[in-house]
Amino acid sequence: MSAEIICVGTELLLGDILNSNAQFIAQELAQLGIPHYYQTVVGDNPERLKTVIEIAASRVEILIFTGGLGPTPDDLTCETIADYFGAPLIEDPEIIEDIREKFSQRGRVMSPSNRKQALIPQGSQVLPNLTGTAPGIIWQPRPNLTILTFPGVPSEMHQMWQDTAVPFLKSQGWGKEIIYSRSLKFWGVGESVLAEKVSDYLSLSNPTVAPYAGKGEVRLRICAKAPDNIAAEELIAPVEKKLREVGGLDYYGVDGETLASVVGKLLRLSGTSLSVAESCTGGGLGQMLTEIPGSSDYFWGGVIAYDNSVKVRLLGVDPGDLDQFGAVSAVVAQQMATGVKNSLGTTWGLSITGIAGPTGGSETKPTGLVYIGLSGPNDQVHSYECRFGTMRSRTLVRYLAAANALDYLRRLLLTV
Amino acid sequence: MSAEIICVGTELLLGDILNSNAQFIAQELAQLGIPHYYQTVVGDNPERLKTVIEIAASRVEILIFTGGLGPTPDDLTCETIADYFGAPLIEDPEIIEDIREKFSQRGRVMSPSNRKQALIPQGSQVLPNLTGTAPGIIWQPRPNLTILTFPGVPSEMHQMWQDTAVPFLKSQGWGKEIIYSRSLKFWGVGESVLAEKVSDYLSLSNPTVAPYAGKGEVRLRICAKAPDNIAAEELIAPVEKKLREVGGLDYYGVDGETLASVVGKLLRLSGTSLSVAESCTGGGLGQMLTEIPGSSDYFWGGVIAYDNSVKVRLLGVDPGDLDQFGAVSAVVAQQMATGVKNSLGTTWGLSITGIAGPTGGSETKPTGLVYIGLSGPNDQVHSYECRFGTMRSRTLVRYLAAANALDYLRRLLLTV
Repeated sequence: MSAEIICVGTELLLGDILNSNAQFIAQELAQLGIPHYYQTVVGDNPERLKTVIEIAASRVEILIFTGGLGPTPDDLTCETIADYFGAPLIEDPEIIEDIREKFSQRGRVMSPSNRKQALIPQGSQVLPNLTGTAPGIIWQPRPNLTILTFPGVPSEMHQMWQDTAVPFLKSQGWGKEIIYSRSLKFWGVGESVLAEKVSDYLSLSNPTVAPYAGKGEVRLRICAKAPDNIAAEELIAPVEKKLREVGGLDYYGVDGETLASVVGKLLRLSGTSLSVAESCTGGGLGQMLTEIPGSSDYFWGGVIAYDNSVKVRLLGVDPGDLDQFGAVSAVVAQQMATGVKNSLGTTWGLSITGIAGPTGGSETKPTGLVYIGLSGPNDQVHSYECRFGTMRSRTLVRYLAAANALDYLRRLLLTV
Repeated sequence: MSAEIICVGTELLLGDILNSNAQFIAQELAQLGIPHYYQTVVGDNPERLKTVIEIAASRVEILIFTGGLGPTPDDLTCETIADYFGAPLIEDPEIIEDIREKFSQRGRVMSPSNRKQALIPQGSQVLPNLTGTAPGIIWQPRPNLTILTFPGVPSEMHQMWQDTAVPFLKSQGWGKEIIYSRSLKFWGVGESVLAEKVSDYLSLSNPTVAPYAGKGEVRLRICAKAPDNIAAEELIAPVEKKLREVGGLDYYGVDGETLASVVGKLLRLSGTSLSVAESCTGGGLGQMLTEIPGSSDYFWGGVIAYDNSVKVRLLGVDPGDLDQFGAVSAVVAQQMATGVKNSLGTTWGLSITGIAGPTGGSETKPTGLVYIGLSGPNDQVHSYECRFGTMRSRTLVRYLAAANALDYLRRLLLTV
């Protein structure tokens, strides 16, 4: 029993978009223990799509399609599949009703072209799309062949996969030996340094341990093959424990945890509150913090002090110090942190001021220079200098600045 | 004359990495005017790789492989290709010398396993790799079939592609017509509605016009085939002009332009300044605005008023109105906008207050309800209600709220 991923879309052939859908489904199939040996990308062209279906249907039992389910004339996946297997398309009244309802919720009227999205092959089941108008199908066009279709929009595809495809695939009993993995996340340590520290574990065979460098962070992926999740977790647990010990304070979380979620957990535990003052990140730190549902329990808000006048007016930064030390300085970072803490009345004030580039750097203050300020209880004020280098993009410097600020607070919360 | 991309690597089948190589080559082939209709991913498995070669070699004239050229035993691309076409592998002494030299530069000794990387099919040319140890090949194993191989490491592949593959492919005279495209971007209109408005253009053959739904936006991609860029632009220009006219105010930019960059351009043109007051977006609007280099010319900063106390203290929102109308209301959005504008002394104040979810919604104020406030010159205050629906994720609601706020300001700046 194996699957094949078929991604349909001329935009993939033109290189307009990255095929993140194939990666997502590949990971998910591995999790389910359903092997797949081929992925194919083909354009919005019925004849070529039929060629692909013919080849795939001759070698696997599960075909997973993404893309080509939209309302426009070039979206042909569903009708081409139906045509290939000789099934008539029938209009599903529930889909029509669902699309109409979605339009009306947004105060719009369904357009006639959306009717096309309600056509599914006779005998197929609807794979519902909660957020978009393009439903998928689950269909067995002949014995020992199952087809699942998904729209190309990743957010819709993910939700449909999790809500419907995963329960369906599990219920069929197709997955034999699952591949189960956990990613341990580290901040403040380089990939090669961490790899050397854990080198003994990199040669294990089950579970395997592999380092991956991410955006400013390093992940150690522990990957076990086992009959089920429980057996896999038993293989992983002792290795994970050791790796976390080796990582020390650089280890910050696992899988879906982020620096913001971990800091949030620590703030909630300590019953303290946080405000932020941001210059070069322009709101990015606040955004990261508020990405976490329930963050209003500990995050009160802050000041985006992009212009120096705002640093003075709203944060009480001393104009003389701004002149003397410059906006990108430890002194100003500290005053920003204390200013926002006092103004909003929180336990902690966390600030960022720096040079994100591409312009604005000088020899003494190059692009990538960032100061993080942290003001806490008992009028303790700290600051921390980061140099991200002049070769990194504006986007990356801003991201690293906000993430390092969170990491700085995380370490403090863990050690006080 | 067409090409096919074959990416080899079990890590792609496990979803460990994104297939950015396929996207890169796809874009490059389009630029060269060499069509390709299929992409295949296959694992490090000789039998399955041979199946893929057989299918691809029967339908195209150029096979482009990435991955599987490394020194480890699971890297089998080159020998499998040679085996399939019945050519012996021979050791290339220049490759050996090159690898040895690279190791010595790094102060290391070449390991015996690297010797494998010097084996190439008899009759093939070396496609040199300046940075890594894995060279590629250019090989014509039979008439009308050309094979190019590249390592999977993107940076090595890119350099080899630009330095050797592009000159080679151009010299063969295979690229007749380049594919050149422009994406027009629209906000505030659905894909199906826009597609119907421009339906006459969707059946054009050169340039073609195709709609794509993005995150909250719709793009019309105009794609021309022509002998060169100038001829392509001439084909595109009149269609672009018409589509922009049809789009009206919903059209906001082209290709790399964003709502934030367009708003920035309009603010700079008008010589006005902007501040923001954010509740549910928590800094996301400021972050979008400051993603644009030079945004300090018109963006001064703002207040992240996540907690109601901040709305009152820093923005002067009336506590009575907060009680009576709630934080998520047109009244409060307007007071936030005016408050931040006055506090920072900018021309415009733009505010967002809403329910991002997943919790916090009620029957009268469901998740996805967002108010945008805009306070401008002469004490004019506007507000605008958005309902993004209860099924959208927190992340998406926050993104849409910030983007709609920018769009609201954009429309005002275009019409006043």
